[in-house]
Formats: sequence, C-alpha cells, structure tokens
Amino acid sequence: MASERTAGLSLIYRLELKNSSHIFGLVAHHIGEEDGDIIGVDVVHVERDIVVRDVNVNVFDREHGRRIRERLDSEEGIKVINLSDRTYLMHLGGKIEIRSKVAVRNRDELSRVYTPHVADICKTIAEDPSKAFKLTIKKNTVAVVSDGTAVLGLGDIGPYGAMPVMEGKAMLFKQFANVDAFPICLDTKDTEAIIAHVKAIAPAFGGINLEDISSPRCFEIEARLKKELDIPVFHDDQHGTAVVLLAGLMNAVKLVEKDLSKLKIVVVGIGAAGIAITKMLSLAGVKNIVGVDREGIISRHQTYENKMWQWYSEHTNPDNVVGNLDDAIEGADVFIGVSGPGVLKVEHLQKMATDPIVFAMANPTPEIDPEIAAPYVRVMATGRSDYPNQINNLLCFPGIFKGALDCRASDINEEMKLAASYAIASVVGEHELSEQYIIPSVFNKKVVEAVRLSVIEAAYETGVARRRYRNYKDQK
Amino acid sequence: MASERTAGLSLIYRLELKNSSHIFGLVAHHIGEEDGDIIGVDVVHVERDIVVRDVNVNVFDREHGRRIRERLDSEEGIKVINLSDRTYLMHLGGKIEIRSKVAVRNRDELSRVYTPHVADICKTIAEDPSKAFKLTIKKNTVAVVSDGTAVLGLGDIGPYGAMPVMEGKAMLFKQFANVDAFPICLDTKDTEAIIAHVKAIAPAFGGINLEDISSPRCFEIEARLKKELDIPVFHDDQHGTAVVLLAGLMNAVKLVEKDLSKLKIVVVGIGAAGIAITKMLSLAGVKNIVGVDREGIISRHQTYENKMWQWYSEHTNPDNVVGNLDDAIEGADVFIGVSGPGVLKVEHLQKMATDPIVFAMANPTPEIDPEIAAPYVRVMATGRSDYPNQINNLLCFPGIFKGALDCRASDINEEMKLAASYAIASVVGEHELSEQYIIPSVFNKKVVEAVRLSVIEAAYETGVARRRYRNYKDQK
Repeated sequence: MASERTAGLSLIYRLELKNSSHIFGLVAHHIGEEDGDIIGVDVVHVERDIVVRDVNVNVFDREHGRRIRERLDSEEGIKVINLSDRTYLMHLGGKIEIRSKVAVRNRDELSRVYTPHVADICKTIAEDPSKAFKLTIKKNTVAVVSDGTAVLGLGDIGPYGAMPVMEGKAMLFKQFANVDAFPICLDTKDTEAIIAHVKAIAPAFGGINLEDISSPRCFEIEARLKKELDIPVFHDDQHGTAVVLLAGLMNAVKLVEKDLSKLKIVVVGIGAAGIAITKMLSLAGVKNIVGVDREGIISRHQTYENKMWQWYSEHTNPDNVVGNLDDAIEGADVFIGVSGPGVLKVEHLQKMATDPIVFAMANPTPEIDPEIAAPYVRVMATGRSDYPNQINNLLCFPGIFKGALDCRASDINEEMKLAASYAIASVVGEHELSEQYIIPSVFNKKVVEAVRLSVIEAAYETGVARRRYRNYKDQK
Repeated sequence: MASERTAGLSLIYRLELKNSSHIFGLVAHHIGEEDGDIIGVDVVHVERDIVVRDVNVNVFDREHGRRIRERLDSEEGIKVINLSDRTYLMHLGGKIEIRSKVAVRNRDELSRVYTPHVADICKTIAEDPSKAFKLTIKKNTVAVVSDGTAVLGLGDIGPYGAMPVMEGKAMLFKQFANVDAFPICLDTKDTEAIIAHVKAIAPAFGGINLEDISSPRCFEIEARLKKELDIPVFHDDQHGTAVVLLAGLMNAVKLVEKDLSKLKIVVVGIGAAGIAITKMLSLAGVKNIVGVDREGIISRHQTYENKMWQWYSEHTNPDNVVGNLDDAIEGADVFIGVSGPGVLKVEHLQKMATDPIVFAMANPTPEIDPEIAAPYVRVMATGRSDYPNQINNLLCFPGIFKGALDCRASDINEEMKLAASYAIASVVGEHELSEQYIIPSVFNKKVVEAVRLSVIEAAYETGVARRRYRNYKDQK
C-alpha cells in the first residue's frame, strides 16, 4: 500500500534513430528482451541521416519503463528524446484555456466588446467600481495563487513546477461549480512581496484561493490579505481540509451517538492544516483537543518559539496533559492525523475510548494502514480515494467559492465555513449513514449546490454579502 | 463626424414602480411624450408594495435616452434603477471564461489532472522549467497587463475601469489567433511596483502584452521587462500601431511610386505611439523624419527635459528645421498624425509634395476630416472603421504574439515587427492595391497566418526562437 496504484501504464518512447534498415529491429529486440509490449509505432520526422519515431509500449510500472529507457539509450544509434504517458499527454499545452462568452462576428459586435462602445462600460465602472462585480469577470472569477513552496508531497518545487496543480485546480473549479479560476504562480517566496502582488492583481478577481504555500508564511499571507482586500481570501490547504474533516466528524459522531462537546480529540501534526482543523473543531463546540507534534504533546508546561504552537498551547489541552502520542491517545474518542505514515499504531487504537474514530489523512500514505486498523476502529477515514470515507478538499472549495461569489461576499468567514461543513455532512442522508459512508463522494452532484446555498445564507446572516438579497433571490 | 455612429440604440429601463393599477399607464405616457418607442415589457420582481419591470425602448441616441430617464425619474412612484443597452448586456458577468481542455469524468481522469499523478508532471517541470512551455498553459498564454492610466480616450480611469478593454483584448486574441490571453489590471501606478508584479506573475505566461499604460512610464516599464524577463514583452499601443502604420505606408508608397528611403515624413504627436512609429520608419529605411509636438518642431536647436524628446531631437530631423507644422509640412510626402482633431488644415495639404499621403490616426476624431481632405490627398488612412484604410492594431497583435508563442521566442524584436509589417502589407495583392485599399480589413482571415509565419521566420533568423526548428516544422 506504499502508494496509489498507477492508473495504467502505456508509455510512448520518442526515439531518434540512425536511419538504417536494421535499427528498428534492434529497438524491438531490446524492448522485447526487457518484457515490454510494443503496441504501436509512428514516424514523427525523417531526415537523411535520422528518423524520429514514437514507440508505444505497455509496461508494468514506471521503474520498468525506466529500465527499458536505459537499455535503449545504451545502444549505439538509438536515443530516447522523450518519454510520455497518458498523464503527460493530457498536460500537453496546459489543461485550461480562455474562451470568449460572446462572439465577435462583425463590425457591430467588435464595436461593442472593444472600441469605441466598450468605453461606455469602462466609464460606468470607473464612476462606480462596485459595478465591476456586474460588468467584468470579477463576478465569477477566482485567482488560484501559489508560490510553489509546498506542492502536494513534493515540497518547494517553485512556481513553474506548481503550475500543473494550479491549472488542475482551475479545471475543478470550473467543472464542479462553474467558477472561472486562473492560476497565478508567483516567482517569489517573500511574504511581503506575495501580499503586494496579490493585492495588485485583485481588481480582476472576486476571490483569492491560496494554495500550497508553506507554513508559517501562509498564516501571515492569509491574515494580511483577508484584512487588506475586500474580496474573500481562503487558504484551501488549511480551511478546505478542516471544513471537510468536520463534515465527516459530524456524521461519525452521529453513528457512535456521541456529542461533539464531550469528545476528546487528538490531533497529530500541528502545521497549517492541523491548526485550521483545531480551530474548526472549537468553532463546532469541541472542548477537549490535544495537539501532538514531533516534540510531543503541546501544553502550557512549555513556551514555544513557533508562534502558532504558542497560540495552540494556550487554546487547547484543557487538562494540560504532557508526554507524547502514547499519553495523549489514552481515552481519546477521535484521532486526527495530518502528519506522516506509521505515526499511529495498533497499541494506540487499543487505548482509545469505545467506538474509536480515526481520520488518518497523511498523503499519500496514511498514519496507519486502514486494513491493519480495521479490527480496532469503528469509523475510519483517509485522504485516499481507494478506501471509503475520503476527506477531499474538492468537497469544499468549489461550492464555498461559488457561494461567496454569488452573493458578492467580502470574506469567507467562520460561519460560512461551518455552514459548508453542515451542508457537506447533510448530503449523506440519515438512512444512508454507515461506518463506510460518513462523507459524500466528490462526484456526488448534490454537494456543490448544498454548500453554495448554505454559504450564501451564512454570508447574508453575518453581513458580508454585498449583493442585494432581492437580486440574489430573483436570479435564483 | 464628431463621433462614430452608435450601433443601434435599444435601451432597457429597469423601473421600480409603486404597485398600483395606473402606474404603468404613466410610464407609457411619459415615454410616448418624449418620442420613445416601447418595444417590450417584462416583470422582474414583485413585492407587496412595489413591482420591478424592464421596459425596452428604442431611442434616437444616448441623449434622448437620458431625457426619458430624467422624465421618468421625476414622476412620483417611478424610479429608474438601471439603464442598459445591448453593449451593456454583452458585458454582464464579463466577456471571457476559463474552460477545461480535458474533461474530468471519473476517478481515473481526476487522478491524472490532479493528485496524485499530476505530481509526475510537476516534478518533470521542476527539474527542467523550460518544459513549462510544453506542459502548462505557458505555451499559448499571454497576459494583457494594464494599470488603467491611459485607457482609450478616457485617460486614467484605474484598473477596474480598464477591465472591459482588457477582457475585450483577450477575446480578440482568442478569436483571431487562438491565443489564450488573461487580463491583469494592476492596482498601482508605481513604475517599479508594476515591473515587480509583472515579473512575479510571469511563470504562467508565454508573453506579456502591455496595454494602455501612460507615457513616459510605459517606456521604462517595457524596457525593463524586456531586459529582465525571458518571454516577449510588447507594448501594443506603441508597437502595434507602428507595425500596422508601416504596413499601410509600404503599400501607399508603391501606389505613388516613391521610395521609402527618399521620403520626407512629418509625424505630429511625439508621445509613445509617435516615437514607436518613428523608430519603425527608421528601421524600414526612412531617413527624413520631422517630429512636431505642442511646442513645435523637435530639433537640435533645443535641449529637452522630456528624455524621449531629447532622444528624438538627436535621431530625426536631419536638416534640423525649426518652426511648427506650417514649416515642417513644406514639401513633405507623408503626414502621420497621432495627435488630436483639427491639427491638419487644407493649407497644410496644399504645401505637401505631389501625391500627398496622410495618416490621420487621432481617435475618435482624426486630425482632419477625411471628406474635407479628399480633394487634396492621394492616399488617406485613419484609425476609424467607417472610412477606407483603417489602421487598426488588431491587424498586428494576434499574429505577432501567436508567432512568438509558436516558436517560444524570448523577445519580439525589431526584425519580427518589421516582418509583421511586410506580412500585413503583402495581404493586399498588387492587382488589388488602390487608394482606397492599402491595408487589409481586420476581418481578412489571411492576415493572422501571414503575420504568424513571417514573425516565426524572423525569430529563427535572429536567434530568439527557443523551440527546435525541427519541432516547429513537424507541427506545421
């Protein structure tokens, strides 16, 4: 279970070959010797001395593919100039595009969308910038902003490397909630510079989705932008995870007939996500949360250089327990892991209260193998799609932003996040609820609309919606 | 001829009306009395005391529409809450959207465009950022960047007001050249800040189109970005106009059988466009260019505080003539105006050499009325679409950027601009060429492809194309 299975491995080797009659025989020989299965060959390009061919080969896994590559490369007259697969091909030229919503077929239409008549619209907005929400893409557009410092499990791979994730996120925004999102990958890691850049580009956008920005800079960047911009700013890695986790937890406690306010919850991994989760849990009424990181339980017996840990020590662990996970887990109702593989052992599970609930969300490998944990837990959730109960941010971000945009919210506040959690949880009907089904599938069509509507209501109730309620109701 | 005719005026008055039986009769009465023609009525919203209606009215012009609005507003129980027209309606919600190029229909596809498999693509790019040109939208995407300081004829209307123009430009990029362009309207006027912001967002883009940034900041911004970025940076207001003008001039001189190198050309309006035009003319071999601005002819008899004028005085006006337009125009073959209405008089035309060529490009009102000029000029071009020979940037920017993107150019250099001028000019065949047809229509389908191919060849010849020529040829 080390990693999710590769979804089919059909590789395309682009080979630059010496243009001689026997060279392709050599290619076939080497691939066959290595147990590769040639399923197709194309000529890309021919010159006098060389021929470029694409050879499509089925292989067992990436390692196998690499062995074949090396063998081919070691042969005189054969050079692998590219190696691609279906994932690679899906990324050629990028995954999103810009489309016109209005056709420009003639002079009349050209004169309206561009000079001279566009000037009327420009003037209207210049006189009242709030009209930008009506007459420009600001109405429905989100910036997906990253500096590429904490991308997936890859760490700091920079803004170029981060682009495929941000493009993917933009695709999901569109497909799941019809939100237009555009990737902004910033070529800087400086906190102040990032804040300044995002503020500068904000006029085009109705919301800012921060993504894959490393801790602790992500806290300052989010806090400052929330304060200094008049559109919602939402760091998905923190809050998206927290919203969806809380949704799952709400349903899990229904199953075990416990009460949120009486739970003892252990959170392992007190980084950006762990802190956001803890805040959401508190907001939902959980009182006894104990945080554990590499140095053990976070308690008031210590002071911390890490400002977030210091804050954490002052706001959690009411019994001020000390030690490590072995101590924290004693009698806990819920384990929440946003740490790494192997952190949680069977011995820990055995120390938990009755009906243990485990959210082991380390990616790609959970804190404990779900199959090993199974006999000892009542409800188990992970971040993975190949086990039941996947905690996936995709359940949250499309709907929460769509809701914020539709009512022109100035913020995505705590009440809106809580509303999103309730909405996600509500999609699982009481009669459907089971240990294997506490959270809806990301492909469940009801989720986005449920989140959107709840978030809008919460925005109006808390006074952050700037669209006239009547106009919102009319359009619905 | 004060302004281009409004393309049809059908206005929609959104009225909040007291909910009483006779109120709509009053609305119809007032509109009728003012000679408005009601062509449709819809109910938008009803409450107990009020009803909101859309009333569609044909009017003569905007002034007429405003009179009706005032009359309605003055009636007790009637309130005009919005006034829209077809142009307005085309702008609702903005003019562009983001679309996925790949569908995400199931888990397998989700796992490729997003986690976990997208990580393979991220790693590939992180190891070799030049792969971003292949595997992200950088391949085909341009940022349309403005600070909103010199928008159309409206001046400094800010980044919100500028958005409709930048969205319009993005539409045209897509429709004319299949280039994906996204509007970046910056909420700052500070030169250094603009440079920093554009550099920071550059990873997603294969080119930067600067737009409607006021002089002289536009020079510094463009020069610095060209030097500090490795993708093309092109200030369309300067170079787009210059490229298209030169194309028109090339064809005009063919008609009058004169030689570019022997022309005397007067340029009036030595701002961003005037300077770019002068540089293009020099590049094309024109030797005798005399610049005129508000203070008269720019010559070496004076020194100028304005750095660009100082440069201009050192690089033009070989005979070092002094005075004003009356003096400059003596014996000139070509007049080029990028100034304002009324600058050019019949008396000036009478002083020009035989077969006068006039480019009167002030917008929306040319330097001289084409109908008044007609008897005294051989060839006349303007910036307007309602006279022959429109000098429109739309002939240049889609093709020049498409060419630069397709060969991964690091720059749009002088040779590429010159190639674009030749290409645009070449679309008008020798047998088609006439006084009324020196420049192709913006809707001529041949233009973009001709520009694209010429620009690519020039990029390879000058060594700024980074895509392997073989790959470019293969794809063609």
